[in-house]
Amino acid sequence: MRILFIGDIVGKPGREAIKKFLKPLQLEHQIDVTIANGENAAAGKGLTKEIAEELYTNGIQFLTMGNHVWDQREIMNFIDREPRLIRPANYPVGAPGQGHGYIRTMGKKIGILNLSGRVFLPPLDDPFSGAIRWINQIKQETPIVIVDFHAEATSEKVALGWFLDGKVSAVLGTHTHIQTADARLLHQGTAYITDVGMTGPRDSVLGVKKEIIINRFLTQLPAKFELASGPIQLNAVVLDIDEDTGRTRKINTIQMFDEG
Amino acid sequence: MRILFIGDIVGKPGREAIKKFLKPLQLEHQIDVTIANGENAAAGKGLTKEIAEELYTNGIQFLTMGNHVWDQREIMNFIDREPRLIRPANYPVGAPGQGHGYIRTMGKKIGILNLSGRVFLPPLDDPFSGAIRWINQIKQETPIVIVDFHAEATSEKVALGWFLDGKVSAVLGTHTHIQTADARLLHQGTAYITDVGMTGPRDSVLGVKKEIIINRFLTQLPAKFELASGPIQLNAVVLDIDEDTGRTRKINTIQMFDEG
Amino acid sequence: MRILFIGDIVGKPGREAIKKFLKPLQLEHQIDVTIANGENAAAGKGLTKEIAEELYTNGIQFLTMGNHVWDQREIMNFIDREPRLIRPANYPVGAPGQGHGYIRTMGKKIGILNLSGRVFLPPLDDPFSGAIRWINQIKQETPIVIVDFHAEATSEKVALGWFLDGKVSAVLGTHTHIQTADARLLHQGTAYITDVGMTGPRDSVLGVKKEIIINRFLTQLPAKFELASGPIQLNAVVLDIDEDTGRTRKINTIQMFDEG
Amino acid sequence: MRILFIGDIVGKPGREAIKKFLKPLQLEHQIDVTIANGENAAAGKGLTKEIAEELYTNGIQFLTMGNHVWDQREIMNFIDREPRLIRPANYPVGAPGQGHGYIRTMGKKIGILNLSGRVFLPPLDDPFSGAIRWINQIKQETPIVIVDFHAEATSEKVALGWFLDGKVSAVLGTHTHIQTADARLLHQGTAYITDVGMTGPRDSVLGVKKEIIINRFLTQLPAKFELASGPIQLNAVVLDIDEDTGRTRKINTIQMFDEG
Ligand SMILES: [Fe+2]
Ligand SMILES: [Fe+2]
Ligand SMILES: [Fe+2]
Ligand SMILES: [Fe+2]
Ligand SMILES: [Fe+2]
Ligand SMILES: [Fe+2]
Ligand SMILES: [Fe+2]
Ligand SMILES: [Fe+2]
Repeated sequence: MRILFIGDIVGKPGREAIKKFLKPLQLEHQIDVTIANGENAAAGKGLTKEIAEELYTNGIQFLTMGNHVWDQREIMNFIDREPRLIRPANYPVGAPGQGHGYIRTMGKKIGILNLSGRVFLPPLDDPFSGAIRWINQIKQETPIVIVDFHAEATSEKVALGWFLDGKVSAVLGTHTHIQTADARLLHQGTAYITDVGMTGPRDSVLGVKKEIIINRFLTQLPAKFELASGPIQLNAVVLDIDEDTGRTRKINTIQMFDEG
Repeated sequence: MRILFIGDIVGKPGREAIKKFLKPLQLEHQIDVTIANGENAAAGKGLTKEIAEELYTNGIQFLTMGNHVWDQREIMNFIDREPRLIRPANYPVGAPGQGHGYIRTMGKKIGILNLSGRVFLPPLDDPFSGAIRWINQIKQETPIVIVDFHAEATSEKVALGWFLDGKVSAVLGTHTHIQTADARLLHQGTAYITDVGMTGPRDSVLGVKKEIIINRFLTQLPAKFELASGPIQLNAVVLDIDEDTGRTRKINTIQMFDEG
Repeated sequence: MRILFIGDIVGKPGREAIKKFLKPLQLEHQIDVTIANGENAAAGKGLTKEIAEELYTNGIQFLTMGNHVWDQREIMNFIDREPRLIRPANYPVGAPGQGHGYIRTMGKKIGILNLSGRVFLPPLDDPFSGAIRWINQIKQETPIVIVDFHAEATSEKVALGWFLDGKVSAVLGTHTHIQTADARLLHQGTAYITDVGMTGPRDSVLGVKKEIIINRFLTQLPAKFELASGPIQLNAVVLDIDEDTGRTRKINTIQMFDEG
Repeated sequence: MRILFIGDIVGKPGREAIKKFLKPLQLEHQIDVTIANGENAAAGKGLTKEIAEELYTNGIQFLTMGNHVWDQREIMNFIDREPRLIRPANYPVGAPGQGHGYIRTMGKKIGILNLSGRVFLPPLDDPFSGAIRWINQIKQETPIVIVDFHAEATSEKVALGWFLDGKVSAVLGTHTHIQTADARLLHQGTAYITDVGMTGPRDSVLGVKKEIIINRFLTQLPAKFELASGPIQLNAVVLDIDEDTGRTRKINTIQMFDEG
């Protein structure tokens, strides 16, 4: 089974990249299931119902989130009724939405678990011990488990990868918006990458107009947020998974872009 | 001119990787000058005189540092008399050592500038405005300027890359110990990568024994630091620079490893 | 000379406290000059021209700010033309407004310097070395120098107090919204307090409705900001200064509140 | 019943302050039970068995800790067998030691709960929801519950105070080493103070030689840690508690110091 996992989709440029690149990619790589991190899909901040629907329509079957999950307040109204959308599982008990979910396809179930790191990020519940608990739950349903670990510090991400090695199909980092060059299979067969990267405006600072962010660093003054225009890119990984064992055979990175 | 820049060398395994991989690499890529980040070369923490000498002997001509620069106190005794070693330039005025330096080779000078980020790192002086000041100084000596930006947050690193685009030959990120997959030439010709990566034990958490770091995340208890053993890797980039203009023609990433 | 320095005024309740308590306080303590931190005066976030005018009308002669200085964007339009208002001096050169200013009264000048800490706060320029520079400037005008050090960490605040001991009339901490019990004269005669406290709703979390903040800690979810109602308080210190030498004779703390 | 709670004891000067001030204080205020935060008792960092014994001998019946709990590794060897010593309860399950404990005296039991904040501190488990769980346990033993909330941010401390108002006898903040001037009974009768303060060298930065810390802020270089000498102080609060209901009648602050 071939799973495509797409890095943080940023705003309209990111959604344009989905429209432009996704279908050909799915064909070329014979993708069975497409998952994406959608925490920045609505103008760079959060997700609305309308934009989620647009992404489903354009070929994404399942969305994960991250620290921007609540940026659009309306998500609180629909996340509980939307089985194709999860947020970090380690929010305190009682948070709206679910931290893991399933895709059913080809007579198989794929379990997806979303976790948030805690280094340089808010103090949610422990993603390490939590991961074991949630993975055990998911494994009662299916051996195929994809973890989106939305985190900042490379130490935390790499550590979780090794910690879950042999326990899940893949640990895929998101949040830094820069794809890393360390995709590999770990010792016990779990596919790992520190960060899948970003889908949105290429000549930008993590999606935002570069002049704005440069100026903020220079002046330490607040500035109006604006996404960059120009060339767009899609960052992703393709997982080739044995659907009977959940074991990943291969992880490949993808970087698509146009020249604007 | 071909410059090899090697990502953070971690301890004895990192130095073994230098011994094993550097000479063949220099030959294969016709390297003229080799620079490395040495902030973790002494057992993962800082740099001693003896270890610096070992690295020079083994083919590295110049060392940059980062937040671990002072971990071995003895560096304070020799850094002022060592022209082949710099530390982040944005330490407050009066700090031991220099923030930029030069390699003289083939009748040319290469200027190297070391900067530290401030996001999730100590509040040194502003690396953005400082960069302009120091680059202007260096450019009075040579058009070839390599910047090692030792920083955590991708936003800060990408922003500095764009900020210095057209002003320097290359902005090379270090510190996260994970190579990123975004090496490119920016619009005005500056070579850029968010992180060059790490040279040291491959099956580790940033060089450290993985069980130690996993346990620290699980228990939040302090633990004795120990570098990992097993397979070693070297992470680097090769810059192909026009030595008359300082303009980079090409940036390529390098990942070498053995299987232990 | 008697100077009253009032801790962070929070929103309408804080301004009500000014209306209610300031005049009697000024009379009782024979206050010559009244200074207040106004970074939260506009609904808890920043300062508008109208609210600044209200505070001047109600007896405050000079306003200092802090990390919330730019929360109301309109301040950028008037801060440059308002000599009774300063923001942290250690913003990068070129920021709108001034970092120090003067009150002229009774044939005397009082210099006021506003600084921001950097521990757990944005990486502005170094307040320690900057302080010396700005104090030297001010001292060419007057021996009376009041420093508002807007900072989080007690270590940074206490250290700056000792660092400036004997160089200024007073180092007064702000920002934590909780008055500390350590007001004293340091060895060389500088008056010091780690935090002057907060002027606003008493039964609150730093001015905000307590249920909102408790809920945020419990759920880690964002929540609509709302100031608390109920009893109000005023926190301040009174400095008794020898106006010829600038030396403080005495520092007293003030806590006024009603029962709602 | 009169309970004396003493703020962070720092090193030998702090222990000298205990020897000098504690007995007279206990007599003067008719103290029945004495508790102290001991996280800095061993040379400013952590606690050894020998120093714990010294403190028990000198009149302290119970010790709480904080973020420095593990600084002296030997504590891991004795904390499990020492019923008079607790560490923050919100360490992950399985950490050495206990997070709450009891003093038995005069036919009564006093429950003590130690919690650590998470703002600007490591990501332990949630102290808010945890507090409720542990307090419920303690209340099956006794209505008298003292909480030492070892935390940095005033918002987190004040919020926990209000959150536990009516549920415990007292919420006493520690960690900042500066006593606050906000001791009071909250609406439902819980005694509260944001920080009890520090017991150790008075003319210091949180106990440390002031020149060292000033220099660290100026240079951003590491420096050898050394406690200050000179005058010593003791910071504490006295709680007057109805031992049948656990309700606090009164909270008073104490500041003792000599002039060296
Ligand atoms: Fe994102
Ligand atoms: Fe994110
Ligand atoms: Fe490093
Ligand atoms: Fe580093
Ligand atoms: Fe404030
Ligand atoms: Fe503030
Ligand atoms: Fe302490
Ligand atoms: Fe502490």
